[in-house]
Order: sequence, then structure tokens, then C-alpha cells
Amino acid sequence: MNKPLPAVWSAPRRLAPLLLACLAWAAATGKPAVAATNAPTMASLLESSKPSDWRQPDPENTLYLDLPAGRVVIELAPRFAPKHVANVKTLSREHYFDGLSILRCQDNYVVQWGDPNAEKPALARNIKEAKRTLPPEFDRPIDPAIPFTRLEDRDVYAPETGFCEGFPVARDPANGSMWLVHEYGMVGAGRDNAPDSGGGTEIYVVIGHAPRQLDRNVTLLGRVLKGIELLSSLPRGTAAMGFYETPAERLPIKTVRFAADLPEIDRVHLELLRTDTPLFRNLIEARRNRREEWFARPAGRIDIANVPLPVRPPPERK
Amino acid sequence: MNKPLPAVWSAPRRLAPLLLACLAWAAATGKPAVAATNAPTMASLLESSKPSDWRQPDPENTLYLDLPAGRVVIELAPRFAPKHVANVKTLSREHYFDGLSILRCQDNYVVQWGDPNAEKPALARNIKEAKRTLPPEFDRPIDPAIPFTRLEDRDVYAPETGFCEGFPVARDPANGSMWLVHEYGMVGAGRDNAPDSGGGTEIYVVIGHAPRQLDRNVTLLGRVLKGIELLSSLPRGTAAMGFYETPAERLPIKTVRFAADLPEIDRVHLELLRTDTPLFRNLIEARRNRREEWFARPAGRIDIANVPLPVRPPPERK
Repeated sequence: MNKPLPAVWSAPRRLAPLLLACLAWAAATGKPAVAATNAPTMASLLESSKPSDWRQPDPENTLYLDLPAGRVVIELAPRFAPKHVANVKTLSREHYFDGLSILRCQDNYVVQWGDPNAEKPALARNIKEAKRTLPPEFDRPIDPAIPFTRLEDRDVYAPETGFCEGFPVARDPANGSMWLVHEYGMVGAGRDNAPDSGGGTEIYVVIGHAPRQLDRNVTLLGRVLKGIELLSSLPRGTAAMGFYETPAERLPIKTVRFAADLPEIDRVHLELLRTDTPLFRNLIEARRNRREEWFARPAGRIDIANVPLPVRPPPERK
Repeated sequence: MNKPLPAVWSAPRRLAPLLLACLAWAAATGKPAVAATNAPTMASLLESSKPSDWRQPDPENTLYLDLPAGRVVIELAPRFAPKHVANVKTLSREHYFDGLSILRCQDNYVVQWGDPNAEKPALARNIKEAKRTLPPEFDRPIDPAIPFTRLEDRDVYAPETGFCEGFPVARDPANGSMWLVHEYGMVGAGRDNAPDSGGGTEIYVVIGHAPRQLDRNVTLLGRVLKGIELLSSLPRGTAAMGFYETPAERLPIKTVRFAADLPEIDRVHLELLRTDTPLFRNLIEARRNRREEWFARPAGRIDIANVPLPVRPPPERK
């Protein structure tokens, strides 16, 4: 194909079925991977990976947003937002979200769903056991027992960035706190002006450049593993802040359910590359210094949102 | 509106007609701007702006990509890519692009257009006076005569970042070079593996997180001023690298023309906030430390891709 670059990465053809299942930032090319040196590329590293380099997400922390066009799979982060994750689970089991809508799609920013009548008490969706609001979970203490793969490059916004159990994380050793960072595909709990006005009834997904100014201002609770294109390619809302102007423009939600609440046959099976392995460290280095033939000048640096987090179907299903 | 945040910014209602014409990263909210302190917000700064804080793009450097759903307006950067800009102008005047297609939409990365038959000599679109390829214009010497508004925050990828004449720029004082940076809405000339294999016949637009690893690897030549949602909301291609699998999926291009080549009545009139003014410096500070009531913890930092570059219709047309 002519002038196919800039490509996210190159990979051998025979990897294509695996790679096409990956998220877009790990998309494959049909061209053979030709490294300009013998240094490994992301493609060669993934090809060399062992089963132990991968993990499967916990069905108790895997959320399915089912839309008319398909399913968005989200991994939740109870390490960082335990109360929000528990509340979203309760909301899901109460069928709170089923039949609600995607209300907002703001270009280079977020897609958001919730109850269009949330502020009209007579019409608002009922809540049973779940909480309508929660105290914020903007950050949490650093726990040495949670593996942290740190990026060596400086970050614009935080003293340290890296990865904990598959999530992008920032840390401030000076005050002993860490937090999830806003980047493409991250999922958060919308709120009003009061920091404790969120809780998970309204959820947004980042579909643009990492809005890092939101870090520690709003509770992040997960990240999209699969299907983000069902959100990122939605028509942009034309009202203020990308809200849809009319109810007809809103996209209906079929259901929001946890994988654990569905029979095995209805679940999506995925494997995620572990982020606490030598392989993942090598992958970061391969992305800091791109050795594919196309690159004339490897950057020698990387920011956290440009580090891919590969997802694939489990080997037995390939 | 319930839980409307995270919002890019807040602004008074009466600014709405102006603001809704701005790009998405400068989208407005219907809520009044309530600053937590007396420090200015982006909304209050724009409201206080004088006519001299704005400029109009040169029709000789303004490109219209006309699609079935509307027009994408692009400002070209002859300061940084003079040969590429001149070649795209020649291609446009030869009607090279008219009837070609958008070939690729890769999530969180790029949309790309060109000739689907470029590699089939018998079918490829003819080129008359224009060049098919050009030497790269990856960077250029720093010129003290070109105003540079530098960000005070460190950047992950470059020694310095800031803005020159409305474009996001990085600089390396050690070797005296500067270059346009890859961020949301930037426009570049696709190329094959050889650095001199681009030239402007195939053009991409960034629709995701800033892929800064491409900086100085491919020639950037402009940025989208208006209409990027016509590209960013396209269906994602399902072939390798986001290419569309079948010709039927490709989006046809009506025409690619320069504003200067159209009668006045057919032009889009826009004003761009100047980036060499005290007002723009204040705007950067207002975005480094968000003072709208919603923000619990202003970041105190900003990366170049999170600095908005406001666009509005000229006052006489509001």
C-alpha cells in the first residue's frame, strides 16, 4: 500500500489475526517488520512472548457496555477506585444503565453516558441499593506491594509515571500518593462542581489527547480494552461541551453488565500484556527508540500515553 | 446539565455563538463561568480580547478539503514546509486531489487521503507540473525574526516547545533547529520508507493523542482550523493500519482547493487567536492553572497539545 506511514507499528503478516484484535494504538501493518538494526521491535517482542507474559482480566472487574453496534469492554481498577467500582457493579446489577443513553461526544475530549433525566426527580432513573454519589477517589497511597514499572523519561505533569497492573499511573513520592492518569481510552466517573458529586451513574471515556489537567480532579475507574472505536467514531454533539442537542441524536445503551454476571458463552475472552515483566520493559524501550525501517530518527523518549498496552484473543481461540 | 464535566472550559452564555464555532478543544458550556478566584479564565480572556489579538489566515495558505458532508479548513505553514506547501498548491490547481478518496482512518492516530491507485502506474492519477516526491522538510533553522511564545513547562520530547504564528513548535537551541510538532489536528505529508518519498500527494491528519515519535520523521505542513470532526468521526478502517478494506468504504473527496482560488463568496472566514501577544501568554497561564469552579486541583503545568488555539468567525459575520 502506498505511503502507508506513519504507522503505529509494523508486524509480520502471520501475526495479523492476533494483531487486528488489538486496540488501535497497537494496530498492525501488512508489511513485514524490517528493523533498521537488530534491536527488537514491538512486533518481534510480541512474537517472542510467552504465555506468562499475558494475563486475563478478572470477570468481576470487567464491564461490558453493549451498544446497538457492538460491545465496549472495560477493565475496572478496584485498586484505585474501590468504592466507585463496587458502586458501578451494584448499579449494573440493578440494571440502572440499561436503556439509558450516550449523551455527549466532544471532539478530542470525551464520550459520556448516563441518565438524560438525572436532574429531573420525577423522571430520573430509580436507584435501589447503589449510591448516587460517593466521596472522591482521586488518588491513593503508594503500596510497595503493587508492582510499578516506571518510565525513565520525565513527565510534564507528575514526578513519576509508569504502569501498575495494566493501568497508566502517576506517583508523587514526596507525599506518597499515586493515581490513574487521563489518557486515551481511560474511563472516569463524571461529576458536578462538588468533588463528592460523582459516583459512577455518569461515566466518560477519553477519546482525545490525554487531558492530564483532569488528573486528581475526577475519579478514574478503568480503561477500555476493546471496542473504543464504537465510541470515538460517534457523531460529535453540537450543543455546548459536545452534548447532543436533541434526544434523537443520543445513542441508546442496551445493557451495562459485568462479565462475571454473564454465562461463559456470552463473555469476550481477551488477554492483556502484563506490565510487570522484562518483556514489557523491552517493549517500552522499543517504543522509545523505534527501530522499524521507516523511522529516520528514533525519539529516544516516550510519554505515558504513547506506550501501547496490547490486547489479544486468548491463544486457544485464535 | 447534569455532571457536565470534565469540560474543556466554561464560558458565559452570551459568547456561545462565537464559541460554538471554535474547534472542539475550545468548546463552550452553557454554564456561566465561575472562577474560583479572581484569576482570569480562558472565557474571560477571550471576552476581553481586542481585534488586534486576532488574525485572519492568508487565503494563499488556506486549504479547503471538501467532502460530501462538508468542508475541512486547513492553515498551511510555508515557514516550515515551503516546498511541500507550494507542491500541494500546484497539485490542487491541477485538480490532482479532486475525486480521490480518504483511504485510512486509524483510531487514536490518523486519517489519510490520496490516490488509491498511486502504486499502479496504469491507473494512477496523472501529475502535470507538480512533483510526486520532494526532499524532506523535517525541521528548519531557528529564525529570531519569527516570534516564539515558549511554554515554561518541560516537554517529554524536546528541549523547548511553544508557538510560532499559530503553530505548535519544538526547538533545540543546541543545534539551532525548530520543527512543527505532531498533535491533534496537525496535517502532514505521508511517505514511504525513504525520507524523500513524500511530497504532498498523500496527506494525513492526526486524530488522536499527539504521536510525538513522528516529529522530525515526516514533514508536517499545516493544521486543521475547522471541520476536523468530519475526519475524526469517520468509521475506523478494519484493514491493517486502519486502511479501508474495500473501495466502497472509502470516502470520496469532492475537491481540494486553496481559498485564494475561490471567489470571495465561497470562502470560509475565520479569525485565529494570535500566539505572539500578552493575551495568549495569559491564556496559557489560565490553562496551566484552571480557575473554573469545577477544578479542585489546578495542574500547574501544561503540555503543548493541551494549549487551545481558538478560532472564531470574524466579528462582522457573527
